[in-house]
Amino acid sequence: MREPILLTPGPLTTSLATKTAMLNDWGSWDGAFNALTARVCLQLLRIAGAEDSHVCVPLQGSGTFAVEAAVGSLVPRGGKLLVLVNGAYGKRMARIAGAIGRRVAVLETPDGVAPDPAAVESLLRADPGITHVGVIQCETSTGILNPVAEIAAVTARAGRRLIVDAMSAFGALPLDAGAAPYDALIASSNKCLEGVPGMGFVIVRAEALEEAEGNCHSLALDLLDQYRYLRATGQWRFTPPTHVVAAFGAALEQYFAEGGQPARLARYEANCRLLCEGLEGLGLRRFLPAERQAPIIVTWHAPEHPDYDFHRFYDAVRSRGFILYPGKLTQVETFRVGCIGAIDQAEIGQAVDAVRAALDELVWLEEPVYQ
Amino acid sequence: MREPILLTPGPLTTSLATKTAMLNDWGSWDGAFNALTARVCLQLLRIAGAEDSHVCVPLQGSGTFAVEAAVGSLVPRGGKLLVLVNGAYGKRMARIAGAIGRRVAVLETPDGVAPDPAAVESLLRADPGITHVGVIQCETSTGILNPVAEIAAVTARAGRRLIVDAMSAFGALPLDAGAAPYDALIASSNKCLEGVPGMGFVIVRAEALEEAEGNCHSLALDLLDQYRYLRATGQWRFTPPTHVVAAFGAALEQYFAEGGQPARLARYEANCRLLCEGLEGLGLRRFLPAERQAPIIVTWHAPEHPDYDFHRFYDAVRSRGFILYPGKLTQVETFRVGCIGAIDQAEIGQAVDAVRAALDELVWLEEPVYQ
Ligand SMILES: Cc1ncc(COP(=O)(O)O)c(C=O)c1O
Ligand SMILES: Cc1ncc(COP(=O)(O)O)c(C=O)c1O
Repeated sequence: MREPILLTPGPLTTSLATKTAMLNDWGSWDGAFNALTARVCLQLLRIAGAEDSHVCVPLQGSGTFAVEAAVGSLVPRGGKLLVLVNGAYGKRMARIAGAIGRRVAVLETPDGVAPDPAAVESLLRADPGITHVGVIQCETSTGILNPVAEIAAVTARAGRRLIVDAMSAFGALPLDAGAAPYDALIASSNKCLEGVPGMGFVIVRAEALEEAEGNCHSLALDLLDQYRYLRATGQWRFTPPTHVVAAFGAALEQYFAEGGQPARLARYEANCRLLCEGLEGLGLRRFLPAERQAPIIVTWHAPEHPDYDFHRFYDAVRSRGFILYPGKLTQVETFRVGCIGAIDQAEIGQAVDAVRAALDELVWLEEPVYQ
Repeated sequence: MREPILLTPGPLTTSLATKTAMLNDWGSWDGAFNALTARVCLQLLRIAGAEDSHVCVPLQGSGTFAVEAAVGSLVPRGGKLLVLVNGAYGKRMARIAGAIGRRVAVLETPDGVAPDPAAVESLLRADPGITHVGVIQCETSTGILNPVAEIAAVTARAGRRLIVDAMSAFGALPLDAGAAPYDALIASSNKCLEGVPGMGFVIVRAEALEEAEGNCHSLALDLLDQYRYLRATGQWRFTPPTHVVAAFGAALEQYFAEGGQPARLARYEANCRLLCEGLEGLGLRRFLPAERQAPIIVTWHAPEHPDYDFHRFYDAVRSRGFILYPGKLTQVETFRVGCIGAIDQAEIGQAVDAVRAALDELVWLEEPVYQ
């Protein structure tokens, strides 16, 4: 059987062109690799629309490493981070800030409920100690799109700095660095840009980075040190994941060839629409209201049946060639289906068929809908 | 022209079987990937000969990330690390300890001079505050083999804990965890095990890890947290570099098929011998005395000629299909040539020819030796 298609929000299904870009060994000191790094960083800045104000700092490791690097490098030791939490990744950013010894406040709303910019504004007024606000653009644990532009506006008005975890949004969901000012935007190679996992990057305001001297709690995660070395030598400070970078370079070429952010978003929106129509047609129910659903990953209530078991459901869909994602909510039983990766409506249609057949096999729906 | 062969100590030339293992996308939550992770960790423990006493904790990022994770997780906040420095990687370990707020002492010997176990012993006697000793098994900046077994013995006798950076040695140069007791041994995927870069790992004494609660200065680099999650779920805590892990799995298969550590060492020794004979035959001189030279990477004095320029030399050799490594010494002008990677004496012989032709072209040697 063919390899399964990943309906997961990264690692995800990548194109063969992206994977074959890894069939070459690069010298990490060699000019050809330095040129690749420079091109990737410039392209990321262009996607962010931030060439004039920001720099791009790539970092080895998973996306969480880049989040910790951004918080540790930008929030001064005496600073305080307000994190807007409505899911696992907001919780993680707050946990990171605590673990590395920064003061942290949390504005928590329930899963699937967006933070209210007015509530952020009054919190910032009430606590002048807060220096930075952290927000998740697409909270992947539910798939909700948070109102980052509005949060950016109140944060700027209050004279504070914004850190955006755009891990599962960057490249597909736009965020204008001019209109929604941020000090740092964090993402990784293996989400909407459709590379393989192994590196993150931070789009960081050049002036904010220059002020970061002495902030960082770590050597490996020190964004300023990483950036200075890269600027001076054209090289990564420590061994780069050369094959991952090469795959990312190839994925970015395909991104621009497809038509960049508008085209990527349009494909994901079409995937998401077809997925929602298909699974709703099977009687499944979405967790989020449609107007807050980002076209990245969709959380579904588990079929209501006393015998429901995610692992059996997963295996039944997997045996048909598709990999689902478990839910990440503690209160309700859910599962998730990603809309992103090098897939389009053909694969989504087949995935809906696979879910239908799996549900039929497992007789979890009251009335089997497939034949 | 074919892709150049990397005579660099990682990233290095990998086999096609290793690279083609990356032509597949893995679900990071999927059972097949969990099985791969478990197999890789078990094989690493076996290579270390430490299945009974230690556990293997893989970590995203480059080798330096794993060094910082080991120091930060194992040296308590009130502890003190004595680092034996005779090159860039010893210096880096000391810098890490300082950056993350641990007290640090340094025993420095010149580049190419091994630390004296007796000196370590008296330092440990003189400073009871020292809790841990850090040593580099093969100091890649010169290629020197440090006397880790002797250092381990004096450290154990003094009741202190050892942290070994075995980055460029593990898998080729043996280190018996029973005879040379260590709390942590750090290495990465892209050195003597001939995988691609993007992950490190720490072979850590199980009891030492269990005592590490609350030590770490970082969330991303917290080895205990990483280990507990892996043990409980079979999964990496944060998105793993799936393709890098798959390549590493394939590289490990080839490692055992070749005959494991003795065979790997024998091939590198043969490579190193041929390289040294060849380049010495061209009138080039080694930096290290033969008895301290590890068969990993060889540091060479630059040709003595007023016009010598490493970049021109590098380009002339590169145009012939081989990538050299710059020197990393500040006092003397050197360059380095690696003996490791999926290469054997055929490639080394051709590399010697390429260096000969490059030197001839550049007329840096007094008497051109080639024709
Ligand atoms: C919004 C968000 N933040 C952070 C992360 C963490 O990234 P990683 O798993 O690569 O560490 C993810 C991963 O899915 C994410 O979706
Ligand atoms: C002995 C030693 N320690 C640490 C490192 C750092 O590893 P990385 O460059 O993967 O961060 C290296 C890399 O060559 C090394 O040889």
